[in-house]
Amino acid sequence: MNLNGSHRRTLYQDGNRVRLLDQRLLPGEITWFESTTVEETAFAIRDMVVRGAGAIGATAAAGLAQHAVNAPDKGFLAEVARGAEVLRRTRPTARHLFYGVEVVLAAIEAEPASPDRAREAALAAAAALADDDAESCRRLGELGLPLIPDGARVATHCNAGWLAFVDWGSALSPIYAAHRAGRAVHVWCDETRPRGQGARLTAFELGQEGVSHAILPDGALAWWMKRGEVDLMIVGADRIAANGDVANKIGTYAAALAAHAHGVPFYVAAPTSTLDPATPSGDAIEIEERSPEEVLFTWGWDDDGRWMRVRASAEGSPARNPAFDVTPARLITGILTERGLIPATEAGVRSVAR
Amino acid sequence: MNLNGSHRRTLYQDGNRVRLLDQRLLPGEITWFESTTVEETAFAIRDMVVRGAGAIGATAAAGLAQHAVNAPDKGFLAEVARGAEVLRRTRPTARHLFYGVEVVLAAIEAEPASPDRAREAALAAAAALADDDAESCRRLGELGLPLIPDGARVATHCNAGWLAFVDWGSALSPIYAAHRAGRAVHVWCDETRPRGQGARLTAFELGQEGVSHAILPDGALAWWMKRGEVDLMIVGADRIAANGDVANKIGTYAAALAAHAHGVPFYVAAPTSTLDPATPSGDAIEIEERSPEEVLFTWGWDDDGRWMRVRASAEGSPARNPAFDVTPARLITGILTERGLIPATEAGVRSVAR
Repeated sequence: MNLNGSHRRTLYQDGNRVRLLDQRLLPGEITWFESTTVEETAFAIRDMVVRGAGAIGATAAAGLAQHAVNAPDKGFLAEVARGAEVLRRTRPTARHLFYGVEVVLAAIEAEPASPDRAREAALAAAAALADDDAESCRRLGELGLPLIPDGARVATHCNAGWLAFVDWGSALSPIYAAHRAGRAVHVWCDETRPRGQGARLTAFELGQEGVSHAILPDGALAWWMKRGEVDLMIVGADRIAANGDVANKIGTYAAALAAHAHGVPFYVAAPTSTLDPATPSGDAIEIEERSPEEVLFTWGWDDDGRWMRVRASAEGSPARNPAFDVTPARLITGILTERGLIPATEAGVRSVAR
Repeated sequence: MNLNGSHRRTLYQDGNRVRLLDQRLLPGEITWFESTTVEETAFAIRDMVVRGAGAIGATAAAGLAQHAVNAPDKGFLAEVARGAEVLRRTRPTARHLFYGVEVVLAAIEAEPASPDRAREAALAAAAALADDDAESCRRLGELGLPLIPDGARVATHCNAGWLAFVDWGSALSPIYAAHRAGRAVHVWCDETRPRGQGARLTAFELGQEGVSHAILPDGALAWWMKRGEVDLMIVGADRIAANGDVANKIGTYAAALAAHAHGVPFYVAAPTSTLDPATPSGDAIEIEERSPEEVLFTWGWDDDGRWMRVRASAEGSPARNPAFDVTPARLITGILTERGLIPATEAGVRSVAR
């Protein structure tokens, strides 16, 4: 696979066969996870074979279409509903997961008379959703270009690049657009403990694209802002409530507080599939808490290139591991969508919601 | 060694023999580093065999006394001055390092006529400094007890416990005092990337003392405050400027911003040897930047108990590694010293400075 050009894509589907770029071993190893059942696809979402808002949504859509292909004619709709529930129960926070399931379910339910036609409609809907995700993210880059002047030093958190979507990404898309437009741009990617998506995935993507960057410990970002090293910050989103509150990877809220304290513009970039007008505010967003093991152990490659874990914590000590947090709308300078840059307000969200 | 009682102590000296608790392998292995020359002692400080403000200061004092023992009568004072310079060049930020050197140097210079009497005075001064450090920290616990009501949930950052001093510690001393007084206390220790002093050392200390605690990723602390899980925060300090600005482990400033945003009282606990009235403000404090390798690799124990490193970052990506930051006085609720709780102001600092 050529990761450095037009052949980037995090998932492919052919009937009930779903191929997913396995992000657990990135960037050390590029492997693909193959799934032929909705249970395997649900595992891939839960275990973070696939992670990132858009990629999770496209995978959920593919998983439900896959399940429609597998489901027998007899009791077809009930079996499809069961598959939808299996997918919905994997991870609670990202809006895209539920959006992907809804889109494919609607396509199936529009063909109540024929399971075969419903299967075709499901596959077409999943494919269209993936293409739409890639196109929306490409458009985020175009529209976000004015945010990134020549010479900008941009901070980001976690990974909201093409690995987090079907292609291009959200927060990184304007950075790629600026880089391709010949602007000098430097990115500070924080590590994003505990899973290290910044140090592993964002740094990898930026390296592949030839974008100047450096990794910072999460705790150093506020100090870097105080030193005047950060011109703006762009992050992705897992869910955006009706009032503009944003759920995103744990650590986003701390970064937004720091940006606010230093007058650093803080943008959220997300396709409109991330918007959730049915959720009034961030208080109503369910925040996933993952296993303490993710905090107590660190995974990586040893000096011989073996993938393994080390314990970098005191034995017997417990840990807490909230996977997301909520950044209140008042800390957000603007939300960049494929339909334009909107304020983080109810009026803004409603103006572009699907 | 019994780590769980009265025999805790991070360093011992007998003439030119200095024994240091090797913190690089803690808490997996308890080993001692033996030094007989000032160069070995300087290595121990630079390589973080010894870390933590007070422990560094006591080690520097011991190292200069050691060097006085080793120095020949001929050219004694010049050789002592050279040893002082070797020690001063190890790490720039912690005030204690320079304080330890100054105290022993003054003892030596008070005996210009006799190298032998100067050697004795140096050893006595180093021993007195270590005892004073332990006693000051014990007193911090007594004086800090009222800050920690029954049921308090206290956040801390990095390690400012007995491992960071000769005994007791600074930020953890009031917590130990509250625990021993029978108060329920729960501690949130953040990981403190990149070296993990919170996850490794503070969690270890608290576990040894039987204090309820859990490890949080650094980026989760602000969210934990937003959730109302943190009643107060106490951190240590590496240097306190005349105006009350505090240099401490990287990530302290981000935590202080978050505490301020949530109205969580933010205390700094430090013996008065940390105060540096000659430095007008935090802007004048030199901040050490350490090797990027500390960020790019994570050290820990594999499943067979072997100490090793893994790369948890993209190969070829650079990193920045500021080891400290400065928290401005306006974010600090109070500074707890062995001479009382003072406001983080010039008047406060001058009222207790040595």
